[in-house]
Amino acid sequence: MKRSLGRKTLILPAPTWVVGTYDSQDRPNLMTAAWGGICCSKPPSVCVSLREATYSYRSIIGREAFSVNVPSADQTQIADYLGIVSGRDVEKFAAAGLTEVRAEHVDAPLIREFPLNLECRLIHTLKIGLHTLFVGEILDVKADESILNEKGRPSLEKLNPPIFSTGEAAYYGIGEALGPAFEIGKRLVESE
Amino acid sequence: MKRSLGRKTLILPAPTWVVGTYDSQDRPNLMTAAWGGICCSKPPSVCVSLREATYSYRSIIGREAFSVNVPSADQTQIADYLGIVSGRDVEKFAAAGLTEVRAEHVDAPLIREFPLNLECRLIHTLKIGLHTLFVGEILDVKADESILNEKGRPSLEKLNPPIFSTGEAAYYGIGEALGPAFEIGKRLVESE
Repeated sequence: MKRSLGRKTLILPAPTWVVGTYDSQDRPNLMTAAWGGICCSKPPSVCVSLREATYSYRSIIGREAFSVNVPSADQTQIADYLGIVSGRDVEKFAAAGLTEVRAEHVDAPLIREFPLNLECRLIHTLKIGLHTLFVGEILDVKADESILNEKGRPSLEKLNPPIFSTGEAAYYGIGEALGPAFEIGKRLVESE
Repeated sequence: MKRSLGRKTLILPAPTWVVGTYDSQDRPNLMTAAWGGICCSKPPSVCVSLREATYSYRSIIGREAFSVNVPSADQTQIADYLGIVSGRDVEKFAAAGLTEVRAEHVDAPLIREFPLNLECRLIHTLKIGLHTLFVGEILDVKADESILNEKGRPSLEKLNPPIFSTGEAAYYGIGEALGPAFEIGKRLVESE
């Protein structure tokens, strides 16, 4: 039995990503964003949506760049903190005990302690309503050796990033492996 | 120690969502998409990115509508199947043993068996490259009673949707609760 919940952003899952930027005074800032996703394979691109009222908004436009930094489950408290305070009031890297690393390819700061960092060049800006969607072309992905699988790719299980639950306003970790993609569905094709 | 992985869509997590559409002959189609996310709170909106070569692409533009259907972990094989075959060749609802339900507010089909369904009206189309990003305003969310928490909101733990791991091409379920959002980070504010 289904229940109608109305016009709400109640879809699951959502990521817990931290967007890194430099402001006009070259001060680094960080902001947690759950409104985002991969949006293109070629060029490889990711989108994040921010309210115009955020301090990060103008910095992304000013530098035409941002980073996306992915925490692991044991950094959930830090990621949550970075979404509560504003960069107008606090130097968040220092306040959260994080280390700023300048990105190689774009004008944005990376979080050394977070295991996965993306360097993104702003290629599209789309004002939707309360939020504006920023599309960033991914110019590099930096991953800690500890989260790579035997093929050198980021493992969801090893990274164990906090997954954001929109309606509950809560975080969850990663659970059991459910099988290989583009593979387990073939059994249904073969049984046709 | 970090390793540079280059210009790739290696960010985590990604969702496993199934997009529902009607084609020009009123045939329902389904397609699994991992490139997507929430993109605005007002109007409540979600984006999904599709290649122009997909059969669903023209249907979204033709009807200015799509649905997003979220499976639970025990439906991962079906979701994977829906991403392997094309609606040009197969009537996927029938082939996957799924039941089509017409959306109430938009011209798109919903999957009865999937616990969470969104009815989306196309409000923006942004061609990025290989993929085109479609922004859908969420006109309704329909959720099975079994996945709602005590406040009537979708629970990530109860839904347990497959999370897509991009670099590994694998699915994982949801794990342990990591704490309430906009709450656990306050401990860092107070300790400043």
